[in-house]
Amino acid sequence: MIVDKIIERADQMRNPSVIGIDTSFDYLPEEMKSGVGTLKDAARAVYEFNKAVIDAAADIAPAVKVQIAYYEAYGPAGVETFAKTCEYAKSRGMFVIADCKRNDIGATAAAYAQAYLSGAVINGKRLEAFYCDMLTVNAYLGADGVEPFVKDCAAFEKGIFVLCKTSNPSGGQLQDLEAEGVAIYNRIGALIEAWGENSRGAYGYSRVGAVVGATHPAQAAELRQRLPHTLFLVPGYGAQGAGAADIKVCFDHNGRGALVNSSRAILLAYKQPKYVGKHYAEAARAACIDMRKEISEAVYG
Amino acid sequence: MIVDKIIERADQMRNPSVIGIDTSFDYLPEEMKSGVGTLKDAARAVYEFNKAVIDAAADIAPAVKVQIAYYEAYGPAGVETFAKTCEYAKSRGMFVIADCKRNDIGATAAAYAQAYLSGAVINGKRLEAFYCDMLTVNAYLGADGVEPFVKDCAAFEKGIFVLCKTSNPSGGQLQDLEAEGVAIYNRIGALIEAWGENSRGAYGYSRVGAVVGATHPAQAAELRQRLPHTLFLVPGYGAQGAGAADIKVCFDHNGRGALVNSSRAILLAYKQPKYVGKHYAEAARAACIDMRKEISEAVYG
Repeated sequence: MIVDKIIERADQMRNPSVIGIDTSFDYLPEEMKSGVGTLKDAARAVYEFNKAVIDAAADIAPAVKVQIAYYEAYGPAGVETFAKTCEYAKSRGMFVIADCKRNDIGATAAAYAQAYLSGAVINGKRLEAFYCDMLTVNAYLGADGVEPFVKDCAAFEKGIFVLCKTSNPSGGQLQDLEAEGVAIYNRIGALIEAWGENSRGAYGYSRVGAVVGATHPAQAAELRQRLPHTLFLVPGYGAQGAGAADIKVCFDHNGRGALVNSSRAILLAYKQPKYVGKHYAEAARAACIDMRKEISEAVYG
Repeated sequence: MIVDKIIERADQMRNPSVIGIDTSFDYLPEEMKSGVGTLKDAARAVYEFNKAVIDAAADIAPAVKVQIAYYEAYGPAGVETFAKTCEYAKSRGMFVIADCKRNDIGATAAAYAQAYLSGAVINGKRLEAFYCDMLTVNAYLGADGVEPFVKDCAAFEKGIFVLCKTSNPSGGQLQDLEAEGVAIYNRIGALIEAWGENSRGAYGYSRVGAVVGATHPAQAAELRQRLPHTLFLVPGYGAQGAGAADIKVCFDHNGRGALVNSSRAILLAYKQPKYVGKHYAEAARAACIDMRKEISEAVYG
């Protein structure tokens, strides 16, 4: 079961962290950017960069999270790089989380589920459009917009993370509102537990996870309590401001139940004074190792 | 101003309807599906189908809405077909609504805004990834996830539709909850009016529209009252069950303020008894004309 496998890999590596491959062309070193004048060439350069970062991280971190927005910005060629990046991470033995925050009404959500989880059926043949192990999903449309994803998770050995309490400053504008005394993020949380009820694995965590930002540790702690069967994908660590103490509350007492993402702190490590002079991939590797140390000390004690 | 232009085109055509180009490969006639065995060929066949439907509709309806989920299901080649379909509709003089329901934290929302509204900047050159006039957006992450889109709308002569009250059966699960006596869809509605406050055009409608399903006419009527400066994108007509009377409440007393989408009823018209024997493009054209008649009678009296 996919969630079990990810948990086991994180346990083995003593590293429940996820490398966010959210690569803007701007992040590349000058020598890789030089002379690039088309979206196609930009997308190609980003892929070269991503491969080197994945090579540098593959024996340290269990998973990547690939944020599709940065690839869509370069059009169809960018989306091709997204697809190849996911494939490459898989080929290097990493689990792949596609961060797409997809959402729509039932019939259309089913098309998204085909794209990322189950594959499209063309004249009776099932063909995979994009490879990922888990996909992020937005539940503003309620149950019938999420169910097609849940259904395909069960049938195709995949998982999803549903947006619950996001890491951004204005995340609370809607998510913290209370309806009959219960905050929206807790209501979504309860739905997430229910959607995952029939797919719990060996460690108690289901195929239906939640996105819970590290930048709101009090609410994260509350959600950890309320959602004992829900794996958390935790953004906000590093560049967004949350530290090791903030993420500790997302884990259970066995050091499980959460995956912590860091993107810019890894991809742009080569620009930090701490790693100055290193090649971008070496700097990314050093930042991954430092992140593992910081997180494993916080989580495993 | 883009919203003015769309309203004027709808007025001229006496047709505030939008053709939903949400083309699943399954929708194609047998002769177009025959022999197709790869996602690339499926995407190519879908593009041929789309072109013929756009040709058939271009002098009848002011705009298309292209639902990206159906294209992502065919991978990068499908996304290429999405891009080409948007371009083709533009070349035929139609306005283009990209139905992508994108959403993320600020920095990432800015990347999505580049993809669809403003273009990516590569070594100082701005390059367009996908063409559209308006984009659908999901506001679960609050203001800072929406502002990058609003900012690019103003700078690049574009617009957005923010999900407010969706057409699907479980849309109300979250959207109808009341926080301090105000339903979530009304709270999002108030934010939408505020986000559009500085971009109102000649007819009073701003660059920040709302998705309001025709399947909930009472709430649609309430929103029409509460959001006098917000253009509605209205799904749910036709295959989802809403009729002409249900959509009338989405319009102001001048017959403006809403665009009504129909997808499957147009794309699959050739399978309906009413249009049987017609080529799919002829059937789509006949269905567009019938839709125009039904909607214009309801809206213009």
